[in-house]
Amino acid sequence: MSEDTTFNPISVTAYAVGEKKDSQKLVSFDKVEKQVKSIGPNHVFVELICSSICHTDWFTFGSKGAVPGHEMVGIVKHIGENVAHEGKIKVGMRVGMGYQFTSCRHCETCTNNLENLCDSSKPFYTAPIGGGYQTGVVWDAHFVFPIPDNLKSIHAAPLLCAGATVFTALHRYTKNPQYKVPGKPLSCAVLGLGGLGHLAIQYAKKMGLHVTALSTTASKEEECRSFGADEFYVHTTEEAKTTLASKFDIILNTVSGDIELDKFIVMLRPYGQLCMLGLPSNPRYDLSAFSLILKARSLVSSVIGSPEELNLMLKFSADHDIKPQVELTTLDKVGEAIEKVNSNKVRYRMVMIVNQEQVDKENQ
Amino acid sequence: MSEDTTFNPISVTAYAVGEKKDSQKLVSFDKVEKQVKSIGPNHVFVELICSSICHTDWFTFGSKGAVPGHEMVGIVKHIGENVAHEGKIKVGMRVGMGYQFTSCRHCETCTNNLENLCDSSKPFYTAPIGGGYQTGVVWDAHFVFPIPDNLKSIHAAPLLCAGATVFTALHRYTKNPQYKVPGKPLSCAVLGLGGLGHLAIQYAKKMGLHVTALSTTASKEEECRSFGADEFYVHTTEEAKTTLASKFDIILNTVSGDIELDKFIVMLRPYGQLCMLGLPSNPRYDLSAFSLILKARSLVSSVIGSPEELNLMLKFSADHDIKPQVELTTLDKVGEAIEKVNSNKVRYRMVMIVNQEQVDKENQ
Repeated sequence: MSEDTTFNPISVTAYAVGEKKDSQKLVSFDKVEKQVKSIGPNHVFVELICSSICHTDWFTFGSKGAVPGHEMVGIVKHIGENVAHEGKIKVGMRVGMGYQFTSCRHCETCTNNLENLCDSSKPFYTAPIGGGYQTGVVWDAHFVFPIPDNLKSIHAAPLLCAGATVFTALHRYTKNPQYKVPGKPLSCAVLGLGGLGHLAIQYAKKMGLHVTALSTTASKEEECRSFGADEFYVHTTEEAKTTLASKFDIILNTVSGDIELDKFIVMLRPYGQLCMLGLPSNPRYDLSAFSLILKARSLVSSVIGSPEELNLMLKFSADHDIKPQVELTTLDKVGEAIEKVNSNKVRYRMVMIVNQEQVDKENQ
Repeated sequence: MSEDTTFNPISVTAYAVGEKKDSQKLVSFDKVEKQVKSIGPNHVFVELICSSICHTDWFTFGSKGAVPGHEMVGIVKHIGENVAHEGKIKVGMRVGMGYQFTSCRHCETCTNNLENLCDSSKPFYTAPIGGGYQTGVVWDAHFVFPIPDNLKSIHAAPLLCAGATVFTALHRYTKNPQYKVPGKPLSCAVLGLGGLGHLAIQYAKKMGLHVTALSTTASKEEECRSFGADEFYVHTTEEAKTTLASKFDIILNTVSGDIELDKFIVMLRPYGQLCMLGLPSNPRYDLSAFSLILKARSLVSSVIGSPEELNLMLKFSADHDIKPQVELTTLDKVGEAIEKVNSNKVRYRMVMIVNQEQVDKENQ
């Protein structure tokens, strides 16, 4: 980091990964006080308003001392000299940060606006003082996104990863389909109705698709329909197998665990796409060659979104009043919040408030 | 079949699958004489000029009495009443037939010109008197394709399956790529340089792609370049691993055996597509989830082509002087021909002549 002589040290309170708990999936958090004394020329310091919890945070729970969190909104308090020169991100702006902290910025992929797919992409937990489970972060300004005025911070935070992930996939894979039944909208299934899924239903509907929600939980039907689903099925029944055969042009798999690919591949129309999102727990995909090839189906994938796509997603969300359904807590209760998310009891995103005053102001 | 009172019985000599030979992959053939006494209202009888051998024929070698063959060209000798009424296929026309004998013609897939992906698609060996290893066939007129005048029969035959398969895949999957390096053509690898591969190189080049041939056989380089390959690599070396990483927008897998998917997935650029063709011998695809998803890569697939695509392929082939490199034999030597194909000694398609006089006439 370059020395910034105008910089007065800032105190930050972080919740860092501590000891493993009984359950492999849970950890304790250590409250850590630190001081930020300078930032790099391409960095900004953002004081957080709120921070939400995404399943991908679990990947950091094995690293003691790491600060998880990659869906956050705050106010820019300091900017590096290059950022000031560039003029896009300014002190006082309300901005969001997501999964990606930085990328190389000069490879062919980066220079063609696919920074999210850069070989040297660096995730949130590698940021100078870590991710969003704290009161402030230091971030590469290129991966900091202004939040439209009509999006509240508590709603914008979950969009920065969950929203970007489903928006980017839908936006890309429904633009130029290989096949479309004439006179009908593309038929889209959203598989899994958690943090990502409940946003995917909203985006897909507002993009003009015919949306079917696929769940294991019958009780989610009403809510799914309120998000915009045209149809709802519990996909685990024998009946569903017949009803759902060759029905969809795209299935967006938002489930964080593993799914049986064969079961869903056969639900695709000719040239249909099963779209995988996010990091799987099983490192292998295993599927029937014949189910894929006899209908010219595809297994496609998408991962977060580029800065260009994140800005597009924020604008689309603001323009179409798309927002997550959130449960609120405060950052100091991160341990309890994690336990609740882990038990799949949150509908649909847990947002931890860092700056209550700012949140109240937005609610006025 | 409806009775056709104007029909004089026609003699056909067929080579039907006989006893299994020592090798699981080889059979003997029984020469069978038969008489065609009538054809259906939607059918045509075609007297064959030539018939070529495709690896997919091997799938019929377990069925004693079946007549293999699904790449053939001949002259229409009789047409059913509905065919006469429709007026598209006429007596005397030179036509080709491929893998597909018929489809249901009324499902959503068929009515939207994707007959090749119809649930009730019927392959060549289910045609009334079987496939192309004989002197004449009875075929659904909708799956019979007029051959452009400047395409010789011995060159057109292999296009009906091999040509259609690679043309359709390239045509579809390079039309609207998710990502393209600005100012550069799409980068296409053709994996496997047999019957399909040597045609794929030609199509890809004429479609304006940058073409790399990937082989296990160094000696194929010169020929690959003569077909239009810009680059050639033996992909089994350690060096190739580095050189070929993230290099291609699309890899067309024309290998009839199984390949290690992981090895090729990592050769794809962001949003790159590994395209699987034809029926695999291993019924499962197994691949690394991370290699796929971290670059938003896809596993896509394609199978033969629709009638619309076959006509397009024939026109494209005629317009761009695309033709297979063939070895010639005669239909009565089918047993030897199969052994030669099976030992991978044919470069690149074995065509069996049925009507020598017609072939000679075309060569004048």
